[in-house]
Amino acid sequence: MINVVLIGAGNVAVHMAKAMHTAKGIELVQRYARSTKNQEFFKSNIPFTKTLSDLKQADLYLVAINDDEIAEFSKQLNVSGLVAHTSGSMPLNELKCKSAKGVCYPVQTFSKNETMEYQNIPFCLEGETANDILLLKNFASAISQNVFEINSRQREKLHLAAVFANNFSNHMFKLANDICTEHNFSFDILKPLLLETVVKLNHMSPLEAQTGPARRNDQKVIQKHLDELNHSEKEIYQVITKSILKTYT
Amino acid sequence: MINVVLIGAGNVAVHMAKAMHTAKGIELVQRYARSTKNQEFFKSNIPFTKTLSDLKQADLYLVAINDDEIAEFSKQLNVSGLVAHTSGSMPLNELKCKSAKGVCYPVQTFSKNETMEYQNIPFCLEGETANDILLLKNFASAISQNVFEINSRQREKLHLAAVFANNFSNHMFKLANDICTEHNFSFDILKPLLLETVVKLNHMSPLEAQTGPARRNDQKVIQKHLDELNHSEKEIYQVITKSILKTYT
Repeated sequence: MINVVLIGAGNVAVHMAKAMHTAKGIELVQRYARSTKNQEFFKSNIPFTKTLSDLKQADLYLVAINDDEIAEFSKQLNVSGLVAHTSGSMPLNELKCKSAKGVCYPVQTFSKNETMEYQNIPFCLEGETANDILLLKNFASAISQNVFEINSRQREKLHLAAVFANNFSNHMFKLANDICTEHNFSFDILKPLLLETVVKLNHMSPLEAQTGPARRNDQKVIQKHLDELNHSEKEIYQVITKSILKTYT
Repeated sequence: MINVVLIGAGNVAVHMAKAMHTAKGIELVQRYARSTKNQEFFKSNIPFTKTLSDLKQADLYLVAINDDEIAEFSKQLNVSGLVAHTSGSMPLNELKCKSAKGVCYPVQTFSKNETMEYQNIPFCLEGETANDILLLKNFASAISQNVFEINSRQREKLHLAAVFANNFSNHMFKLANDICTEHNFSFDILKPLLLETVVKLNHMSPLEAQTGPARRNDQKVIQKHLDELNHSEKEIYQVITKSILKTYT
């Protein structure tokens, strides 16, 4: 049994608590947060404290708080178990506590009200010793089938990759949505296509999956599209088209 | 019962034939193609011809051939039923036959070997008379629950929106994949996030769904990312970040 104290009360903490309830071999022994914010999203039978000196003894202290609060908070943490943060963009050494340090980063976007399939969430782990990594692996494997060990440098790059994969693709959807709205048809028409764009990648790479005028170097259609776009969208169209053309020539 | 002659033997034709087999109220009475290419993807009991003058009488002639062959092919077509092409980027008037003209555009990306849920595919219809539109609606509704009537101008814009939504988002996935490969971790780590990026849009708009450093105007992270990218990726990062910043300020 892995005893866990969960620190934080945001989106990640809410979902980590839920994930732990259904996982075998994990016991959430206590929650800590600065305030009772979001209390309604947590089960009421988990012991809760706002006082750091009241923290219980545990194998793992899971720190799911804002990136820029990790250093300051962890300085005050005086515990004997493994302390692991859940941040994608912060290095292991952002933790300033004296005890053993680790990272347990769930690669997903969380909203409090959403139900999720925790067993599919990739967990990216980092630790300083084989024992610490084993503890994190046992913890993450109790929740998910997708557990990876990556170092701070790789996690930094993973975060950059996620900006392209999630933030930038979502902005492409936003621009598509704008075109739909402007011309009085529903963005819903495109949704099955969006889903297939992603589902396709289960059996081919994005490099193989590419289609469209830039992939075919269809200058007639490209020019027609450029003529239809305003300055800001045109710039995006041009830069991405140039990059696709470069990829396939 | 709507009697249909299917013209073409590519990806779209293969899937339209499959969709018709399972649809109630549609009978595929004949197939026409220039050659026997892809014959193995079609049921063998559908009458097949390579001779235009042998075309059977039907309510609907569904022309699922390459965009740039539609005009030339339809000139030779001498039938009395409704002739509808399946192209997203071609206007209704690309059809040069004397009979009634229409468009029946399935908004999806098709691969021959893939199985698909046809009832979710959006069909975008266009016709010249109420009767023609009704026939197309009856046809498409027998296959799918998502049937929309849009004109040639809207369909042109829909095609442009699909370039952003599918082609450009896929290129973002490709750039993310490149970063994973370069730093020795698997692109699979990002796949649940990609799926959630799209599934999220079932209950919020892309405008609401946006997250990340550009959304937060986090210049420290943006600068760090820019320093890590090569020229071509940096240009894309800059242009999209600028557009996201502009959206939210």
